Amino acid sequence: MKVVSLLGSTGSIGTSTLKVTSSFPNDFRVAGLSGGRNTARLASQIEEIRPEIASSADERVSAELQSVLRQRGYPMARTRFVHGIEGHTEVSCHPESSIVLSAISGAAGLLPTYRALEQGKSIALANKETLVMAGELMMRKSREKGVEILPVDSEHNAIHQCLRGGRKGEVRRLILTASGGPFRETPKEQLSRVTLEQALNHPTWRMGRKITIDSATLMNKGLEVIEASWLFGVTANEVDVAVHPQSIVHSMVEYVDGSILAQMGLTDMRIAIQYALTYPDRWLTPLPSLDIFQLPKLEFLKPDHEKFPCLSLAYRALRAGGTAPAAMNAANEVAVEAFLNNGIAFHEISQIIESVLDAHAPGDACDLQAVLKADAWAREEARIFSHSNSSAVSRR
Amino acid sequence: MKVVSLLGSTGSIGTSTLKVTSSFPNDFRVAGLSGGRNTARLASQIEEIRPEIASSADERVSAELQSVLRQRGYPMARTRFVHGIEGHTEVSCHPESSIVLSAISGAAGLLPTYRALEQGKSIALANKETLVMAGELMMRKSREKGVEILPVDSEHNAIHQCLRGGRKGEVRRLILTASGGPFRETPKEQLSRVTLEQALNHPTWRMGRKITIDSATLMNKGLEVIEASWLFGVTANEVDVAVHPQSIVHSMVEYVDGSILAQMGLTDMRIAIQYALTYPDRWLTPLPSLDIFQLPKLEFLKPDHEKFPCLSLAYRALRAGGTAPAAMNAANEVAVEAFLNNGIAFHEISQIIESVLDAHAPGDACDLQAVLKADAWAREEARIFSHSNSSAVSRR
Repeated sequence: MKVVSLLGSTGSIGTSTLKVTSSFPNDFRVAGLSGGRNTARLASQIEEIRPEIASSADERVSAELQSVLRQRGYPMARTRFVHGIEGHTEVSCHPESSIVLSAISGAAGLLPTYRALEQGKSIALANKETLVMAGELMMRKSREKGVEILPVDSEHNAIHQCLRGGRKGEVRRLILTASGGPFRETPKEQLSRVTLEQALNHPTWRMGRKITIDSATLMNKGLEVIEASWLFGVTANEVDVAVHPQSIVHSMVEYVDGSILAQMGLTDMRIAIQYALTYPDRWLTPLPSLDIFQLPKLEFLKPDHEKFPCLSLAYRALRAGGTAPAAMNAANEVAVEAFLNNGIAFHEISQIIESVLDAHAPGDACDLQAVLKADAWAREEARIFSHSNSSAVSRR
Repeated sequence: MKVVSLLGSTGSIGTSTLKVTSSFPNDFRVAGLSGGRNTARLASQIEEIRPEIASSADERVSAELQSVLRQRGYPMARTRFVHGIEGHTEVSCHPESSIVLSAISGAAGLLPTYRALEQGKSIALANKETLVMAGELMMRKSREKGVEILPVDSEHNAIHQCLRGGRKGEVRRLILTASGGPFRETPKEQLSRVTLEQALNHPTWRMGRKITIDSATLMNKGLEVIEASWLFGVTANEVDVAVHPQSIVHSMVEYVDGSILAQMGLTDMRIAIQYALTYPDRWLTPLPSLDIFQLPKLEFLKPDHEKFPCLSLAYRALRAGGTAPAAMNAANEVAVEAFLNNGIAFHEISQIIESVLDAHAPGDACDLQAVLKADAWAREEARIFSHSNSSAVSRR
């Protein structure tokens, strides 16, 4: 029996994770759940799972959640209710859990995940910002504790699988595939006029709003390049991106002997989640087989760095090192939030990130404090830039 | 330093193997060469390699070979000259060799390969007929000696690589890719009129004549299904075939958890040969990288069993078991030889094999004698059918 703590249970990865754990009721038990502000969904999950501990965004949400559950006759003594980052950390560090699935999106996932790693728990990581911000810290701790971080992102999960075909020194490069997002075929000059609705219409994957926008700017792929660099110990020159609009090949590894291994599968996150939770074993999935005879023709295209500057910005931050990726990530979070609130135009997301990177003097990312300081500084900078941009938008 | 005996040095795989070994002069030494009737090529190879032992087809060829070499001033004492199956066996069993690359096509490769396996030498196997005829014997001996048989066929080599991504019980099925051959788009009713030249014009791979015809009938894929079944210990139901005209994905493995691992690469046999010779390591190839951005679009199609009956005949022989695959293989060799000599029409190849299988009562394939007896019987049967067909052709 594997006992799981789930961070980010109400999001897209979280709900898929509960589908996976519930399809193996004799093999998985979820001891802790940590959700955000979606009280209704979190209440239903708690009713179904009956976890030892449940965390939500803050005190107010937690009170509301408990009130809902009490009204529905939930046995309140069964679960301890906590909240905020401290609450999420209590969930991730719950003594009965041996594995933490970390799917709180954004920087909020960092601390609870890091603390669980410190306790030697296995980490199934869906929160790429954790490694983008604090890759050095996370990987050092994982080596220190002898714990492998299992990636849940379909791309990194694919690469983890392909890397089983060889040894570290035998890898020539990793090739992350990208769907190319909804604007793959949109002319560059039209990108300033695309709507929020268009940006949220991802061609192949159903995901949360933040990551869907990141897919449209290709920043998602940029974050993944940084994540891959930490997870698999490779340099920026050893990670390439291929646009693969069919999203069937989830990523590839090229070896020095000329072989490329690729992982393919349905575009269903349950496959990667299950792999991360059951590794080193593979369990029989309840999902249907990928019907290779019904696939569209598969193609691999060079990404357009000029049209999607976020990808180059991510490489730039990775090469700069230190706190640069953390600053870039923070700027991106603020800029995407501003775009989601109709405050700025689509093409201004990358402009804000670039301005923040230009202004950032990267320092060492050797402790959490330094990382969080760079994060806070970049957020503030990005807010100033967003605000001046958004004023510009309203003036137009 | 790995010391290699090379069986079938003058063929397509043999010459590619020597390119691989010569690109790592400090890591490989070829102690024994075994060729056929191509005296000129074998003489050149011997001059270059200076092996301890060299075998050729028969006494006459060997005499000619020695005469050529003597005239060229080759230091004759450097090499011992042998011939025939006994000679090939001396090459494969040469005491200094630790690895035998077995690439004599057809049934003639069986005995020298089996004897080398008995001596515990590693086998890099390009001769699929060895496993088709005597899979049970070969695999039993390989387990007994604790020696792995490394496949050189690009498909099985790909599967070997993909199988590193999981364990035995985690495999749902193997998917062998097939180019589809030169007649993939030829209407069924025209297959009786195709010429030898058309059949020899393989779309993606440059190979010997026998295997090129086998690719045109899809019998090559049938033999590979049987080979895969033995090599990887799976049943006929666990090996599928996908027509993949681009020949970029060399084969795939589907796992029970829904992941498919695929191996891709250039259509150059040196990649698979090098893998088989260097396993468990991967060495830096002198070949260029596969440029994934220049690939044609990749597709996977269901094979047409009605148009290419040889594929179904191979599944039938595999399911019948015992000596049936050996009989089928022998009938195919005779029928292809008859087609290459313009004795029969293309569509009659499968008819002859079917007639032989119909007439064959499969026995146990538990010793070499039983296998060789079935082989001899099927050849005789196939010759009778070819002859009556070829008379029919000449009467037309």
